[in-house]
Amino acid sequence: MDIAVLGTGTVGRTLAGKLAELGHALVVGTRDPQSTLARTEPDAMGNPPYSVWQSEHPAIRLTPYAEAAAGGELVVNATGGDGSLDALHLAGESNLAGKVLLDVSNPLDFSHGFPPSLFVKDTDSLAEQIQRAFPQARGVKSLNTMTAGLMVDPGRVGGGDHTAFVSGDDADAKGTVVDLLESMGHRDVIDLGDLSTARATEMLLPVWLRLMGALGTPYLQFKIVR
Amino acid sequence: MDIAVLGTGTVGRTLAGKLAELGHALVVGTRDPQSTLARTEPDAMGNPPYSVWQSEHPAIRLTPYAEAAAGGELVVNATGGDGSLDALHLAGESNLAGKVLLDVSNPLDFSHGFPPSLFVKDTDSLAEQIQRAFPQARGVKSLNTMTAGLMVDPGRVGGGDHTAFVSGDDADAKGTVVDLLESMGHRDVIDLGDLSTARATEMLLPVWLRLMGALGTPYLQFKIVR
Repeated sequence: MDIAVLGTGTVGRTLAGKLAELGHALVVGTRDPQSTLARTEPDAMGNPPYSVWQSEHPAIRLTPYAEAAAGGELVVNATGGDGSLDALHLAGESNLAGKVLLDVSNPLDFSHGFPPSLFVKDTDSLAEQIQRAFPQARGVKSLNTMTAGLMVDPGRVGGGDHTAFVSGDDADAKGTVVDLLESMGHRDVIDLGDLSTARATEMLLPVWLRLMGALGTPYLQFKIVR
Repeated sequence: MDIAVLGTGTVGRTLAGKLAELGHALVVGTRDPQSTLARTEPDAMGNPPYSVWQSEHPAIRLTPYAEAAAGGELVVNATGGDGSLDALHLAGESNLAGKVLLDVSNPLDFSHGFPPSLFVKDTDSLAEQIQRAFPQARGVKSLNTMTAGLMVDPGRVGGGDHTAFVSGDDADAKGTVVDLLESMGHRDVIDLGDLSTARATEMLLPVWLRLMGALGTPYLQFKIVR
């Protein structure tokens, strides 16, 4: 499948690398490829600059958001939550129309320090804001409840015995995402229902962050025991 | 231990019954015992009236909130979240001072239908509102992330292999609550930290409610796999 991953941070790189490994044709989108590739310093999280990752993944092209989205059958929003709507506007409404738009972002507001609060919650969600802004995209929320390393390698904790969630209004689009998740090793994917259920999974972030603090690792996962 | 459970709904009854079974001295508090006992109809959830449960638990006295709280070393707030502050004011600040106050309630707002929203969230919590209103109580948040039947019988799903959380500012009070949880069969209790971490567990309710909808049962539990 032709997949565009928007976002060059850890989440974008990790998903793009794994999906390419699984045989998909990957393009990564960014605002300005030249300036993304020109960076030579680690980012705020200590990750090496994109150019290092690019040199290790020569088959994955880096293009402006719009070019990436235009070529993708499935578009992954792996940009930071507070920049997602801007990035998707740059990707372009017509380039997203009819596409499965897998949103893995979270509406985290770090402006008051750590832990972040949520800039949308409870009676609305970032997933729904995106869907309203791009009504012809087929929005699916998933994977936002785990660290990047577990999105693509769920076996890394608990032998993979834990749960991923999907939310969305388009059953076929959700099916495509569930297939993708299963291809990455997710064995328990719960369909929570329509896209408004993304409010619930976005609201998992606060407990995820507190658990990371209490346990001292982001390698933790929710399992829904029933 | 002398334990006062405030609230006569399913949560209060279930906790009071189990804690009495474990050998604790239980009193249940309500606003007006006579009117609680006078009800003959099932409640809005279809539960039998309190008098039926009372007749099956003759050793557990029903008293006004203040009398119950006055006699308890540990007080459980099992009232509905939207009535908790009122109930605790009736219990009385002096009757709560120095006591472990285990808050199992959730700030659910059903005024706009189902699913409910949260009337406090993200940057504050009901647990913290209660603590600020009763600064001498030793507040602990726990058990609010599961249905009543699993609070007292965690083995009922997944052989009990799932997680409970505690939040609180007083380490000794948290220790008392953890002991109580373990005595009821909880084997994995994660101490998330101070009482502000209750924001995170109260924000689990939306996903809990969506999961109940998707799975068709409240007998579901979060396990933190790590």
